[in-house]
Amino acid sequence: MPSSSSPEPGFARDRFVLPRAPDGSDAVYLAGNSLGAQPRAARDALLAAVDDQWARVGVAGWEDCGWWATPRRLGDRVGALVGAAPGQTVVGDSTSVQLFGALVAAGRLRPGRATLLSDAGHFPTDRYLASSVARLTGLRLVTSSPPAMVPDADTAVVAVPAVDFRTGERWDLAAIVERAHAAGAVVVADLSHAVGAMPVALDALGVDLAVGCTYKYLNGGPGAPAFAYVAARHHDALDPPLTGWTGHADPFGMTEAWTPAPGVGRLRVGTPPMLSMLALDGALGVFDDPDAADLADVRAASLALGDAFLAALPAVDVVTPREHDWRGGHVAVRVPDAEGLCAALARRGVVVDARPPDLLRFGFAAPYVTLDDARTAARELSALLG
Amino acid sequence: MPSSSSPEPGFARDRFVLPRAPDGSDAVYLAGNSLGAQPRAARDALLAAVDDQWARVGVAGWEDCGWWATPRRLGDRVGALVGAAPGQTVVGDSTSVQLFGALVAAGRLRPGRATLLSDAGHFPTDRYLASSVARLTGLRLVTSSPPAMVPDADTAVVAVPAVDFRTGERWDLAAIVERAHAAGAVVVADLSHAVGAMPVALDALGVDLAVGCTYKYLNGGPGAPAFAYVAARHHDALDPPLTGWTGHADPFGMTEAWTPAPGVGRLRVGTPPMLSMLALDGALGVFDDPDAADLADVRAASLALGDAFLAALPAVDVVTPREHDWRGGHVAVRVPDAEGLCAALARRGVVVDARPPDLLRFGFAAPYVTLDDARTAARELSALLG
Repeated sequence: MPSSSSPEPGFARDRFVLPRAPDGSDAVYLAGNSLGAQPRAARDALLAAVDDQWARVGVAGWEDCGWWATPRRLGDRVGALVGAAPGQTVVGDSTSVQLFGALVAAGRLRPGRATLLSDAGHFPTDRYLASSVARLTGLRLVTSSPPAMVPDADTAVVAVPAVDFRTGERWDLAAIVERAHAAGAVVVADLSHAVGAMPVALDALGVDLAVGCTYKYLNGGPGAPAFAYVAARHHDALDPPLTGWTGHADPFGMTEAWTPAPGVGRLRVGTPPMLSMLALDGALGVFDDPDAADLADVRAASLALGDAFLAALPAVDVVTPREHDWRGGHVAVRVPDAEGLCAALARRGVVVDARPPDLLRFGFAAPYVTLDDARTAARELSALLG
Repeated sequence: MPSSSSPEPGFARDRFVLPRAPDGSDAVYLAGNSLGAQPRAARDALLAAVDDQWARVGVAGWEDCGWWATPRRLGDRVGALVGAAPGQTVVGDSTSVQLFGALVAAGRLRPGRATLLSDAGHFPTDRYLASSVARLTGLRLVTSSPPAMVPDADTAVVAVPAVDFRTGERWDLAAIVERAHAAGAVVVADLSHAVGAMPVALDALGVDLAVGCTYKYLNGGPGAPAFAYVAARHHDALDPPLTGWTGHADPFGMTEAWTPAPGVGRLRVGTPPMLSMLALDGALGVFDDPDAADLADVRAASLALGDAFLAALPAVDVVTPREHDWRGGHVAVRVPDAEGLCAALARRGVVVDARPPDLLRFGFAAPYVTLDDARTAARELSALLG
């Protein structure tokens, strides 16, 4: 439960523009686990990038407007939200691309080992890319659920999400890392459904590599760039496959061979999509402006939203753990015709999403979702289930 | 030479906002070969995406605003500018990422062959990624200049640019493709310094795969998404390494295994950076609005700019061919202290760029560069060279 000094859910609602319901009012927007609502500051930052930077400064913006440094600068800001000390995180590309690079690089940290152990219920792109990486690098892909994973002396890499994208179950990263390290393997964590929803302690947990997206709880905008983290102890040995020019130690030297930039900078690949990056730049203020709530409070408010929703819910199959420790930022319920219910809820001004085969997901992004929103969603679902 | 009915260079200048010179006037902006100036329509499209789409529609924008279809839709528009019939081009990711995918997929089209033949003077990211792909896939990387390439029965892939990024020399793609195909190899062309500067006839030339960027002559904005082309005859066999969820035949089915989308759609990887994509959407109108000049006219006007520049140039070492057929969109001159001259020109309101060790590049983006601009640049360079 939130402490008495915790902010109420919806505490930063005035910083956002919320999607509209069919009647023109603000929607009950519970799809922030898929695409976050728009922070007003994201729009401001984007307009500044377009009008004051690209238009006026042109190509000199790479230096004069700090574009070149943006992937590292935003990386440190996102890093701070997942418990990473500066210098270990970069922003850019999509989560899929970052994941490909992270899995190949992770495998190379453990030469002589042949198994890539991955969550069987991992988000599809994680599973598909693990399969592709296994094929390209000669690893053997083995899948199981995170609690059932048994890394052994042949395991090079353990790939898991922090939160299950379907059920909203939060995995015990500490235990997963401990088992992996005991077997000598490295852990690649996908934080997409955790970052911005709850504190994550990458450095403290000893996670080796991590990736995640910024368009869900971080509200960076549709397809906002992803991030990648590599623990500092691995930097010197880090040998990534996507050896693009911006990850070079001297990118404008344009030398014959690729010499990796010091540290995590070598995970930069091509020219980053600066307009999308700078929208994210504005959005992150929700979490790190001087007056922003800290993530423990965001998490407490999100759990309070989930509790209110669960308390008001009709008799329905909830697949998300009710225990706070094992619940992520969204709650999923099993229903007949999830797609149809999702559309019917949208017509009533409640935006959620459906995932096959039979799940409805309700995302509780505490900065802009209120207790009334959570109760309204439960009531409307109840009405539809009759 | 332009025909009498060709538009004058700078014919679409009123569609652009040009970077400012130190005195506040419009700069002589000859860096469009690095970052194109801003089309007003790019700003309009971006604002609509932010205010009317993301803010109001939220996650439903993936369907209701057509975001999901954007990589294919923009792909067809860019494809039309490089001589590709619809259905063979997608937009997304960076050129580096697209190139990685294209090189791996190209190699897989020629199993049993072991050589990747690449331009020795290729843009650095192309060279670095060719090296990484060779290492991952077991290919042997061999480099030489495009005219000297001799593909043989062991050559799987020939990787070349359409225009040399340093010298501005336009390569003879027709001859390169003919030699490669005679040896049974496939060609991967990087069109970054050609697209939007001149007509390219991918289908007619028989190019197999191509990639390119959209932030140079296509004016998509800093780090605008790249594109990838695959000739239709290769689609059924196309086996890409970046098997992201958006390239799946049924992306929301979230099935166990990755089943490639039909055709070039399988080159989609992760969630695309939609804000950067939609800025490009607006920018492309410069080339395909109903009243837009066709690319043959853009090319003629660009060559006229280069001719005017060369005619007014002081005695200086021009490394770009003067023959129209073998000149790209920019002209490069060899000078002592290229970096210093680049900065001095900028102080005089002439924006160009420098490339190591000793080249100054002058880009002639005909939609917004005028003959006066070209002559001013030559005059200012002359004054600085004393």
